Amino acid sequence: MGGKAVILLSGGLDSSTTLAAAKEQGFSCYALSFRYGQRHAVEIASAQRVAAAMGVVEHRVISIDLSQFGGSALTNPTLAVPKDNPDPTVGEIPITYVPARNLIFLSYALAWAEAINAFDLFIGVNCSDYSGYPDCRPEFIEAFETLANRATAAAIEGRGQFRIHTPILRMTKAEIIRMGTRLGVDYSLTHSCYDPTTEGLACGRCDSCILRRKGFAQAGLVDPMRYVET
Amino acid sequence: MGGKAVILLSGGLDSSTTLAAAKEQGFSCYALSFRYGQRHAVEIASAQRVAAAMGVVEHRVISIDLSQFGGSALTNPTLAVPKDNPDPTVGEIPITYVPARNLIFLSYALAWAEAINAFDLFIGVNCSDYSGYPDCRPEFIEAFETLANRATAAAIEGRGQFRIHTPILRMTKAEIIRMGTRLGVDYSLTHSCYDPTTEGLACGRCDSCILRRKGFAQAGLVDPMRYVET
Repeated sequence: MGGKAVILLSGGLDSSTTLAAAKEQGFSCYALSFRYGQRHAVEIASAQRVAAAMGVVEHRVISIDLSQFGGSALTNPTLAVPKDNPDPTVGEIPITYVPARNLIFLSYALAWAEAINAFDLFIGVNCSDYSGYPDCRPEFIEAFETLANRATAAAIEGRGQFRIHTPILRMTKAEIIRMGTRLGVDYSLTHSCYDPTTEGLACGRCDSCILRRKGFAQAGLVDPMRYVET
Repeated sequence: MGGKAVILLSGGLDSSTTLAAAKEQGFSCYALSFRYGQRHAVEIASAQRVAAAMGVVEHRVISIDLSQFGGSALTNPTLAVPKDNPDPTVGEIPITYVPARNLIFLSYALAWAEAINAFDLFIGVNCSDYSGYPDCRPEFIEAFETLANRATAAAIEGRGQFRIHTPILRMTKAEIIRMGTRLGVDYSLTHSCYDPTTEGLACGRCDSCILRRKGFAQAGLVDPMRYVET
């Protein structure tokens, strides 16, 4: 393989494993993170640690403000993050959904890719152990890939075809953790919680924490995350 | 009709006419503009004047930084804006192309639309008298509409289907100007130049100025734009 790839990196478990998969496939990795008004901005520090540990060529953190549009508990501190959901993989789309977030992230990734002559984008979406977000589904990714190849000069001038890679799309959380462990991901650097304390401790009770903890338990591995109460 | 619509408004001739078309169709108009590091940031002032004159419900100006990715004369002051092109509608995609720009703009428009429960988006793309930008073509718009209906909770929960309106897509510049004039657009408020003077005078020689001047000439109307030399 080889070549350059742009990897969306939140600093969480899924995107960090996705970065490891891109690296294993031989890509020179350009990591992209966003400050988007999320209440768990501590994840940016995780993204920086993970990017450094994985030896990316470049890591950019872009500030964009999605909180001004509203509509999500992740960007509105007056809305409560749901806790103690017995199974976050069933039921309605939760209030932690951020309108068009992955679309905006992928659009920036595409802009950067075109500017550096990369045609491979990686995103750690997952539709197995997930919360039902529409922009984590395969049909969303397929539509974005089609769009990318119509939206850009690089594609229509024939310099290449964009490909959106989703290496963990259909894995369970346990499978993701096992693969990442095999690829050398240091999960103590990652961060998953939607509602961490100001000291950066994970709440252990939001959907994201619940999915993470179940995943480590099913994988038979120890979660190195520091939780409020463990 | 009725209902809310989000309109991408650059302050130029095309987007101002598109806003007028949305208004004529009975939509409550929410205008969205971007400071994206463009050298012709004077267009934001035009967008504000146009939005006020047309009586939009709300006008938001979002700051995003596309200049950091590079790759365009519109966001890189060290690259020259091409001048005196005899026919900007033929030939290669020009250096004024900004990677993934319309995709990023539409993604933000979609995020805002979902947050305010709007399902109609308007964008003033045009593939007739245009410079060959890939993200102004009908196949790009169609792919985005498909994507919008897979990317959002509002669509997959059945609250509505997103529609991307392109009222001037196949018009000549002269036809756009005639329609806008009929709908009461005050073109003295608009701005088209890629490379204006610090006083806000249009250069008269970039692709955008050339297309605008030809359009007014063909429409048999007087262009109220103040050019450097007229």
